[in-house]
Amino acid sequence: MDYQLEYISRYFEKISKKKIETYVVTRIWHLLNDSEVLIVPQQYVKRLESYALTDLYLPQIGFHVEINEPAHYNNIERESLDNLRSEELRRNTTHKVFHIDCRGSLNDINRETDKCIAIIKDEIADKRRANNFKPWQDESEISYHQKRGMLKAEENPSLRTISDICALFDAKVPIRGFLRKGVVNYKDMMIWWPSIGNKNFQNILSEDDNQIIEYSTNEKKRIPHIYAVKSDSRKRVTFFRGTDNLGFTAYKFKGIYELDTESTSIEKGLAWRRIANEISI
Amino acid sequence: MDYQLEYISRYFEKISKKKIETYVVTRIWHLLNDSEVLIVPQQYVKRLESYALTDLYLPQIGFHVEINEPAHYNNIERESLDNLRSEELRRNTTHKVFHIDCRGSLNDINRETDKCIAIIKDEIADKRRANNFKPWQDESEISYHQKRGMLKAEENPSLRTISDICALFDAKVPIRGFLRKGVVNYKDMMIWWPSIGNKNFQNILSEDDNQIIEYSTNEKKRIPHIYAVKSDSRKRVTFFRGTDNLGFTAYKFKGIYELDTESTSIEKGLAWRRIANEISI
Repeated sequence: MDYQLEYISRYFEKISKKKIETYVVTRIWHLLNDSEVLIVPQQYVKRLESYALTDLYLPQIGFHVEINEPAHYNNIERESLDNLRSEELRRNTTHKVFHIDCRGSLNDINRETDKCIAIIKDEIADKRRANNFKPWQDESEISYHQKRGMLKAEENPSLRTISDICALFDAKVPIRGFLRKGVVNYKDMMIWWPSIGNKNFQNILSEDDNQIIEYSTNEKKRIPHIYAVKSDSRKRVTFFRGTDNLGFTAYKFKGIYELDTESTSIEKGLAWRRIANEISI
Repeated sequence: MDYQLEYISRYFEKISKKKIETYVVTRIWHLLNDSEVLIVPQQYVKRLESYALTDLYLPQIGFHVEINEPAHYNNIERESLDNLRSEELRRNTTHKVFHIDCRGSLNDINRETDKCIAIIKDEIADKRRANNFKPWQDESEISYHQKRGMLKAEENPSLRTISDICALFDAKVPIRGFLRKGVVNYKDMMIWWPSIGNKNFQNILSEDDNQIIEYSTNEKKRIPHIYAVKSDSRKRVTFFRGTDNLGFTAYKFKGIYELDTESTSIEKGLAWRRIANEISI
């Protein structure tokens, strides 16, 4: 199954218990009818002090869709809380939020959804005209970044595999298997793809992404590891490994980090401090 | 939730574990974009000696869709068996069968599905032009039949509730609750809606629909019931109660039946023989 089909199928399956959401999301997808447009379920949005969750998000145009099932309107408190949340989202970002009212019949919901689809199509057409639209195409992820010559952390560039990362930087792909290293050489730096943890390491990314603490959980290797890194403290182009909302692995570009020797200690581990949010390729 | 939305949502939910089928069915539904068109999952089709099952059926135009997942093509035996089945279906009925090849990418599957959708749209347009298209609209089910003035068993007319049956024949709706009778008077006949069984009765419909055996499972009432019916042996306009593929109750018109006193016995029960396949309203 190709990646796009797998992705969309997983999305539909993930929400299949929510009947109206499934109806509306499948409608948006099929009537947009544009395989260059990415739809993302349940997007976390940073709020002032917490996170908000929208039902569907179109990252290429910064557009959120809230699918309001009938129950949404039965609770005035909940309704006004949701509206407040949308307001805040609009105020704090350049994002747009569209609410689809799903209280009516099938034909009513079709009409409401189609209004939303028309707006999305317009936004995409505008971006395409301005030559500012990054198509969702698996194969072109790498070539898109290469053509652009730049990765910016604020745009959340995300790659699917270590091979993709290496291809982007024209770096040697590390050997697979348990001997695989967690870094490859790149110019005078290294490319690094830490994950939250594996059986040897624990990596903690700070909330603001400005620091990563790398900690060896293997007691015997902890001290030699710190000394080894200190003696070869090249900067690291860093992709933090995580999973997206559908459970796919995603290596998210975070920036360039350098060793912060002052904050590093045997007890705490290696402290990496972000020194750049972007990199030219 | 209105009936159409409930129906389509249940359909999507029912197939949600089959990822490619969900993708294709939701696409067909949304791109047909016509709430007068009914789609039915997993339709049983009578074959010479058994039943075949197609993935999606459009009863208004006698059109079947087979959604062939990649695995379908891995097994030559299975593939040729399926083709044979489709051939037989085409030969024995006026039905059409379209196979969607789902081996390709998302864009390939979109293209294959869209070919199918184009044909379906043509077929529907033809039927509409010929004034021979019965729209799928819950409210109009009754008015459609009334306007037509005729029920034909071969067309599988199906109503959703006893109230709908009574509305169609302008008959008195029986009182709800456990005192509700299983029949209402209609002209010199009765309208009857037997089910396979409840705590008092067992009703067996023959394979060819030509006979119904009505059997009281209450030993004390069995003999009096037979005598009571024999003394009031009005013909019965019969809707056999069942469930459709999505679990909705469906009262399917089968024809007019009269008591076959020769085949009736205390041991066997009341035998009803079909004497007409249609009725004027």
